[in-house]
This record gives sequence, C-alpha cells and structure tokens, in this order.
Amino acid sequence: MKNNDHMSDNESKFEMSSFCPVQDRQTGFIKLGHGSGGRMTDQLISEIFQPVLNEQHLNEKEDAAVLHLSSDKIAFTTDSYVVSPLIFPGGDIGSLSVHGTVNDLSMRGARPLYLSAAFTLEEGLECKLLDRVVSSMKRACLECNVHLVAADTKVVNRGGCDKLFITTSGVGLVESKHVPSANKAKAGDSIILSGDVGRHGMAIMAARENIDLECTFESDSAPLIDLSRNLLRLEDALHTMRDITRGGLASVLNEIAVASNIGIELKEGAIPVISEVKAVCEILGLDPLYVACEGRMIAIVSSEKEKEALELMRAASQGEGATVIGRVVEDHKRKVVLRSLIGGRRIVDKLSGEQLPRIC
Amino acid sequence: MKNNDHMSDNESKFEMSSFCPVQDRQTGFIKLGHGSGGRMTDQLISEIFQPVLNEQHLNEKEDAAVLHLSSDKIAFTTDSYVVSPLIFPGGDIGSLSVHGTVNDLSMRGARPLYLSAAFTLEEGLECKLLDRVVSSMKRACLECNVHLVAADTKVVNRGGCDKLFITTSGVGLVESKHVPSANKAKAGDSIILSGDVGRHGMAIMAARENIDLECTFESDSAPLIDLSRNLLRLEDALHTMRDITRGGLASVLNEIAVASNIGIELKEGAIPVISEVKAVCEILGLDPLYVACEGRMIAIVSSEKEKEALELMRAASQGEGATVIGRVVEDHKRKVVLRSLIGGRRIVDKLSGEQLPRIC
Repeated sequence: MKNNDHMSDNESKFEMSSFCPVQDRQTGFIKLGHGSGGRMTDQLISEIFQPVLNEQHLNEKEDAAVLHLSSDKIAFTTDSYVVSPLIFPGGDIGSLSVHGTVNDLSMRGARPLYLSAAFTLEEGLECKLLDRVVSSMKRACLECNVHLVAADTKVVNRGGCDKLFITTSGVGLVESKHVPSANKAKAGDSIILSGDVGRHGMAIMAARENIDLECTFESDSAPLIDLSRNLLRLEDALHTMRDITRGGLASVLNEIAVASNIGIELKEGAIPVISEVKAVCEILGLDPLYVACEGRMIAIVSSEKEKEALELMRAASQGEGATVIGRVVEDHKRKVVLRSLIGGRRIVDKLSGEQLPRIC
Repeated sequence: MKNNDHMSDNESKFEMSSFCPVQDRQTGFIKLGHGSGGRMTDQLISEIFQPVLNEQHLNEKEDAAVLHLSSDKIAFTTDSYVVSPLIFPGGDIGSLSVHGTVNDLSMRGARPLYLSAAFTLEEGLECKLLDRVVSSMKRACLECNVHLVAADTKVVNRGGCDKLFITTSGVGLVESKHVPSANKAKAGDSIILSGDVGRHGMAIMAARENIDLECTFESDSAPLIDLSRNLLRLEDALHTMRDITRGGLASVLNEIAVASNIGIELKEGAIPVISEVKAVCEILGLDPLYVACEGRMIAIVSSEKEKEALELMRAASQGEGATVIGRVVEDHKRKVVLRSLIGGRRIVDKLSGEQLPRIC
C-alpha cells in the first residue's frame, strides 16, 4: 500500500498549525482540508464548534445521537437557511436557523427538544464569522431550551457556495392529544395574527440594499414556543397554527384555505404593519402581505374561544400584539379575500414569482 | 396597502406557465421564484417532488411531520451532501444522501425509519437533473424501507451554490438494549471490515478527472441496514460499528482508538482493495487507506464471537467480503499501527490536509 499521505504530513501539519488555533480563531480562514473528515476537520470541530456548543452528544462524535424521549409521538422537520447577508439587524443565519426549526415544530403543537445542524462552508470563509454564527446558534438554543445533538460540516471550493449555508432539522415531543393542522380550519373560526408583519423581510432588504432609515427596526426573528404552548390550552378549539415565513401572510393564509377547503376573509386595516416597514415596502414597491416574518404566526380558533385565545397569546412573549384579522367563511372556498371598510372585496392571491430571494 | 404584486401577476404567471409543466419537465430550468414560498414553489413541489416522492407526510405540506413511534428511544443524525459530480458511476447525490444517513443510523444499532431532505438549488439547474436525483432518492428510500417525511427547497442565485446540495437528516428506532459506540472497543477485540475499501472515492475521482480505465468499477454506495441488523444479534459482544466515509478506513480507526482509549493493530495485506482502485490510487498518488467508502463498515466484536460475527456479516447484503483486518490492543493507546509480515510497524495516522474534496 502506498504511503503518499505520510510524505505530505509535514506540509499539512504546518497548514494545520497556521489555521486558527484557539488563541486567534478570530483571524483564520476555512480551508478545503477542514472538510476532509481527517485531522483538520477534528481541529475545526474542537476549536470552533465544540468550545461554543459544548453539547454532550456532539462531544461524543458518534454517527448518530441516541435519545431517550418521554413520549412515542414526535414532530420532525427540516429547513435550509441561505439568507444573505449572513448577519442582519436583529439576528443572523445562526439564530434564524434555530428559530425557524423550533417554530415549525411548535406549529404542530410539539415541544422542541433536539436539533441537528449541517454546515456548508465556502473555502476562505472567515473563522471569525463562523464563530459568531455558531455562538448565536448556541444562544438561541439556550433561549429555546433545545439541544443541538447532531452536526455535520462540509467545505466546498471557493465559489462553490456563498459563504455559509445551514440546514437545521428538529425533533419535538407531541404531548397534546390535539395536533393543530393546516387542514383543520372551519367556517366561523377566528383568525388571529400574533403581531405586525414584514419586519424580517424588510430588515434584510434594508440591510442588503443599504436603505438608510432615520428610525431603524430589526427582524422579528424569534421563537414562538411560549405562544404555541399557551394556545395548546385551548385543546380542540385550537384548529390551526402556522408561522409566517417565505411568501408572507398572504401565502400562509392561501395554503390554509386550500388545505382546509374553506374561504378566508380578512378585514382591511386589521393587519398591523409598522410605519418603518411600510416605508421600506414603498421604496421597494412591495406589498407587506407578501413579506416574510420569522417570529409571527397565525392561530385559527373556534370563534367562541376567540377572546380566550387572544388573552393566551398576549400573555406570551412574541404575542403582545395579537389581534383578530379575519375569519374563516363558507363561501369563496380556497380563496383569501380582503374586505374593505366600504364593502369592496379583492382577492389576496398567493405570491407569484419571487419577491425577495434568499430571505431565509 | 399597496398592491404591486398584483400588477406583476401577469408577467409572473407567464413565467410560471413556461416553467416545466408536467408534460415537459425534462426541459425546464430552476428559477429564483421556485424558492419564493409562493406559487412557483408550489409548482416545483407539485410537478417535480410530489409525483416522484408521493409520501403522505410531504403531500400534507405541514410545518412538521407528526410521527408515532413504537419506542421512545431514537437515533437522530444529519449530513450534507455536496458531491461533485452529481452523478457518478454507481450512484448520484440522491441515492448517496439516503445511504449516508441510513448508514449513520444503522451504526448506532437503530432501525432507520424517517428521513428529511433539504434541497439547495442553483438558479438555472436543469429540472431534468433534479428529477433524476429525486427519483434516485425515492428508489433508495424504497430499498431502505424509510419514508421521506419532511422536505425543504431553497433556490439561490446563479453562482450562489454549485448546482445542487442536499442535506438529509434521519430518525431511527433504537430497539436493542446494547447500543454500539465508538467508545466501546476493548483490548482483545477483533476488527472486521465488511468489504474492500476505496471504491466510492476512486469512482468519483475517476469520473471527475476523466481517468479512462479498461475495467470500470462503481462506487460502493449502499445501505448497511442488513449488515448492522445481523450484527445486533451478537448483543453485548458487538462493541462498535462505524461506516467508513470521508477520511477513509484510517481516519475511522483513529477515531475509534481515541474514543475508546485503546490501540489498534492492523495486519499488513489483510485490507482488501480491488486492483482497479489500486490503479487509480497510484495514478493520483493516493493511499487507499484514506479513501472514502459509502457502503463499507467496521465492526469491533469480542474475539470469542469473531467467527459468528463473520458469518453474520457474510450472510448480509454488502457483507459478503467481510474479513478480519486486525485487533484491539492494550499498548500504543490512541494509535493505529500496521504490522508488516516481517514484523515491522508503521503508524497509520489520521488523514492530514485534504485528499479528495467534495467526495460526499
């Protein structure tokens, strides 16, 4: 068997020691070797990921984490994050990737427990940036009380990807008998929005386009765990929960209208949008109804529980701004209609084309 | 509220209808709008993913799949796949992404059940290629008896990634009381390799470098489900299972030596490498011990069960070539040593630097 690798050991070792050792991981760069599965990968893990994440299952470096659950009903989800820029007002790709996955689990009434994260790194990425993103993920995990138990790192050649993508998957425990679903909305139900829409998308766009605002605002990226947990107290009066992401409120409501085969009627003026978001939307020629959020949700509940639902939502973090925006109706099935104050109606269609690429 | 999106509807609709409708999804290309979360994303899902995958949980389009398990102990893992080229002799990124995740679950003694897949697509990707990869994933899922229950699609601008990346995560059921682990190898144990090494890495490199061989060979990419299930019959005599991927056999053995704090001694000449793989290794100046496989594994078992283990492995698909390659020893802890026929010894270190980027 040939021994070429051993011949090149000295060179490689030199490269390794010049790569961001712990004392200056602020100045290093990612190299292809960090994706080799060999010693440089070990070094990347032990110097960047492990000190920050410090998770038992990751430290064990097994092929898969073995987890004991207290229930045999789980929720399972995945999402890739390719947001640009990586860091934006109010968050970054790290916190976003935790919030997004935690929220997807929460919307099915699950208690988020475990996350996995797969990192695709571009050769030449600053270790400093990676460190910042991983630290942000860790903070978000602590905030959400979830554990990162499985991870993977791949490195692609320069130009093979745009700096850093993260795919998070999540496992949550379903403890409630009633699992909310997009197909459970019923005519007569109340539609409640947890807060104003469009901050995430417009914060990203303002950062990307360098739009200078006197009054700045931040992304709404946040976990919806408290909100969804509170709403679960409604039991079978809680029909649907959905977080608002790509495609915005309009797209989410259209999905629910189709899945439940019902119509949705929105009250004009009932959907809160802060003035700064309105301003950026106007500059860019966008409709806030189609702009992504990352910390807002829709709850659809039996109308007799509307007041209770509002109270439960407002009592939770991220739900202070909860407000009824419309109701589920029998007619115009599979369509979302906005009814104006003077009685006019317009169809609010699903997003066509692409409004804002790489928003999450 | 502004209504700009509605003004652009006609244009977008034209774009939509020109995108690969079902009758010619062989000729379309991915556009940024397919990642919008709006109607074009729906179309991508309903025309490319759904017809091929046809999985109940995916068809439901919920935020997360809710799954009932028959046990409360699970294994959970994730891996990104960035292999280049996307299609290679013996497989493609689709089948590879299923095998890799299924194998990681199997190595912990888990029965693979559910997968998620997150696709990052480059604007301009041929729908034909995506269709081929997704079809290949579906075949691999059927072969492995796993269900794809959660998926995500992101589209990045041209140049934002290299065609197509897939991140698969997996959930498996741990039914055995004895969970194999990299830290359970004990002095005296036998080390068994399931077959010849290096086919995957060399098949990729031969395809990438256009190396013309008289005798072609294919990647070893394959599920190790049968093999691991058979080995579980050894109960607590089965200490460690590990599939051989990036970094090759040498890196996997080094990881086990460190995790178990033991030494590993390999017999020279005991590690099978087919002549075609040897030939490509020689052309490229590589050591087969460091070349990735995607359907080979190491089992470390109590020496008194060595014969039984060999029989169990050889009785399983992918295990016909199982052979004892060495043993676990008390001395030279945390090191892997190759002992030659005339008594010489050399340390087989972990891979340094990067031998083969984007091999998986």
